[in-house]
Amino acid sequence: MEKLDIKELFKNTSKYKDQEITLQGWIKTVRDSKTFGFIELNDGSFFKNVQIVFNNTLSNFDEICKFTISSSITVTGKVVLTPDAKQPFEIQATSIELFNLCDQEYPLQKKRHSFEYLRTISHLRPRTNTFNAVFRVRSVVAFLIHRYFQENGYVYLNSPIITCADCEGSAEMFNLTKFNLNEPIPQKDGKTDFSQDLFGKQTFITGTGQLHGETFAHAFGKIYTFGPTLRTENSNTKTHANEFWMVEPEICFCDLEDLMDIEEDFLKYIVKNVLEMCPEELEFCDKFIQNSLIEKLQKVCNSTFTRLDHKEAIDILKKADREWEFKPEYGEDLAKEHEKYITEYFNGPVFVKNWPKDIKAFYMKQNADGKTVAAVDLEVPGAGEIMGGSQREENYEKIINRMKEINMDTEELNWYLDLRRYGSTIHSGFGLGFERLLMYITGMENIRDVIPFPRTPGNCDF
Amino acid sequence: MEKLDIKELFKNTSKYKDQEITLQGWIKTVRDSKTFGFIELNDGSFFKNVQIVFNNTLSNFDEICKFTISSSITVTGKVVLTPDAKQPFEIQATSIELFNLCDQEYPLQKKRHSFEYLRTISHLRPRTNTFNAVFRVRSVVAFLIHRYFQENGYVYLNSPIITCADCEGSAEMFNLTKFNLNEPIPQKDGKTDFSQDLFGKQTFITGTGQLHGETFAHAFGKIYTFGPTLRTENSNTKTHANEFWMVEPEICFCDLEDLMDIEEDFLKYIVKNVLEMCPEELEFCDKFIQNSLIEKLQKVCNSTFTRLDHKEAIDILKKADREWEFKPEYGEDLAKEHEKYITEYFNGPVFVKNWPKDIKAFYMKQNADGKTVAAVDLEVPGAGEIMGGSQREENYEKIINRMKEINMDTEELNWYLDLRRYGSTIHSGFGLGFERLLMYITGMENIRDVIPFPRTPGNCDF
Repeated sequence: MEKLDIKELFKNTSKYKDQEITLQGWIKTVRDSKTFGFIELNDGSFFKNVQIVFNNTLSNFDEICKFTISSSITVTGKVVLTPDAKQPFEIQATSIELFNLCDQEYPLQKKRHSFEYLRTISHLRPRTNTFNAVFRVRSVVAFLIHRYFQENGYVYLNSPIITCADCEGSAEMFNLTKFNLNEPIPQKDGKTDFSQDLFGKQTFITGTGQLHGETFAHAFGKIYTFGPTLRTENSNTKTHANEFWMVEPEICFCDLEDLMDIEEDFLKYIVKNVLEMCPEELEFCDKFIQNSLIEKLQKVCNSTFTRLDHKEAIDILKKADREWEFKPEYGEDLAKEHEKYITEYFNGPVFVKNWPKDIKAFYMKQNADGKTVAAVDLEVPGAGEIMGGSQREENYEKIINRMKEINMDTEELNWYLDLRRYGSTIHSGFGLGFERLLMYITGMENIRDVIPFPRTPGNCDF
Repeated sequence: MEKLDIKELFKNTSKYKDQEITLQGWIKTVRDSKTFGFIELNDGSFFKNVQIVFNNTLSNFDEICKFTISSSITVTGKVVLTPDAKQPFEIQATSIELFNLCDQEYPLQKKRHSFEYLRTISHLRPRTNTFNAVFRVRSVVAFLIHRYFQENGYVYLNSPIITCADCEGSAEMFNLTKFNLNEPIPQKDGKTDFSQDLFGKQTFITGTGQLHGETFAHAFGKIYTFGPTLRTENSNTKTHANEFWMVEPEICFCDLEDLMDIEEDFLKYIVKNVLEMCPEELEFCDKFIQNSLIEKLQKVCNSTFTRLDHKEAIDILKKADREWEFKPEYGEDLAKEHEKYITEYFNGPVFVKNWPKDIKAFYMKQNADGKTVAAVDLEVPGAGEIMGGSQREENYEKIINRMKEINMDTEELNWYLDLRRYGSTIHSGFGLGFERLLMYITGMENIRDVIPFPRTPGNCDF
């Protein structure tokens, strides 16, 4: 008598035909009549439940009929194939033992709950079908990201999250301190005395691992980071959270065209494999979260991604026969409505490249035209921008001059600038917001619903 | 003419025999005589260098002879097998083009540098053999951790790092705030007014994902976390850092014995696979970092781990014919010297289980004796404790009573206690300090040397 995972039972059912097995899990539903009953059991290993049949020959039949939803039980019984029923097999129980009777107050009774309500019980919501599907997909996609990069020779870098560098603009960074904030903060000469803090200087939580990533790329050729990112944006929108995960690959000997090849290959790999590895979860999402989700995902795998300059994108937008909320302009960013139009225009994913330099970061490769940088955003139907990348400026003089132009402190980033002095290379990288990818894959519309315990302005529970 | 990774060339050399290929990378050494010269080239994809032979038939021969270490170049040439030489093949260059001549100030000239010095150039040290080996092993081990858990049906949970819960003791937690620490902090009624901070309350960086992990284990059966952890300990030792990575699995329907099975299986899987996947790197570590490293690792894979009670361990220590710096006592923790003695006594890894409850955490399963809890530490020869775990107390009354006994606020952890009301299970989990495992695997003796950009008291550079 073997203790099995439900997943194993679903994947290799015939192996257990007519065998006696033992399962442990939680009750999803109980129904009974006078002489027999059914329990839907789940142990968390698989999206689908196992049907348990029990009858009044069991000594504790009356007790079983009163078991509550989410009670934890141990079931022993025979696996019987049921080719004519809606489930492929059922377990005819020879023994059902209770471990813990779930309290009557359990908030996830068998009815629909709003996503808003479920956010107030983030510790329980992964037990619902929707969140069970979403968070298993999250886990599988995270693994696929690692697998893609490891299979392709990238080294995983754990870039530091504590930083003293102010280069990203401290306005977006959290302060990190050991100072007791309930007491007066040490002062010296009328200023905060950070020499008394743990690191002896003011420290923040960094919003990117890119700069550190570039240093490791110049040792390993190709690296990627994948870790949490904190930002202080006070935005209460469906796409903003103050804690989220980012993927940031950096590749040496790689120009903008090579980078687009990598981004396209990467995205197709993730989508193709998650379709294969999470069929039950994505079918559920297709049915209950976003219509035609699977069709959308399959289409991306089979499409060729368009590549066009920012200028060409603006040309197309200007020619479009429609009213814009935000008028498209050559020197400016694309609005959500523009991104949408462009992906619909080309009926698939679009790389928009070579952006106006004044709206992009200092480290981006300056193009020969003196006006644009070799940046690229990937726009995807139904989600807009999901990756942003660029070729990095590898010329020491050019990057220093750009930093001075925008009044950046070059001293503080000497270590970063060293890369341009000690074996500089043509190199590129991109950033992917992990949650944005998950929203795209699952069809969930609010970032709070793809993060296990979301942190947003005013919200830090659990 | 194909652009290749050096790794591909080493792994499938015969495929490229007598072919013309192109490589891009950095110069490790250049030697020349009047008519020909050698370059050792590396592109970061593989631990070993490729030998390039160039001769004075190349139009830029004189220039090449002056190339500096770490200059980035493109080499085209023919792959020639050299069965009688120390390297299996070499490239006879038909063209060598410079991309960036490395500045003469480059600090990593061909001589030995101390680890202390190399920490001051953390952005360059992965280019040295030692740190190239260490950080590639770090990447491979990280992936193996994911692969082990994913192959065994665990769901990866990104537990939040921002927390409002004070249960771990805020003394060890960093404060996280959007308040400008260079200005007076908002006050109300003589106290800090956290309602004006981003989350509307005081927030910290959490030091563990365990409690959140348990909530997800009760939905998915088995989960693991793997992410950064920040702690404020003001310790300048070889084994402490303020930012490090932790792995924390939680498993339902799993008691202490099952947990030890999992820990043993997990550790053997990691060690066995890293030996296979990083032979060049570990041979280097064996030769230059720790003698007999590989033998030590192989031995762990083939040993059976001893399991004994804390009380039995103390019995053995008390009977030992030696002087202790710290006298072993039944109610107390094991000191480093005790851990060492125990692993030597059993000549292999040892699980020490059932610890005195007063020196362990509130959530651990209370044993029937009323004195001990079902905790277990895994002690490994040469490294001491590398994993700490326990069966968790699943009984609502018992855990509440224990919390009250030690004056904990139960209200704040209501969500955590809910797990004991809504389908409680026998469940267990452990924590692994990722860097401690890496020190064990590579033989490196200072935690600062297995973290890409280490943060320790007074040190937060780069």
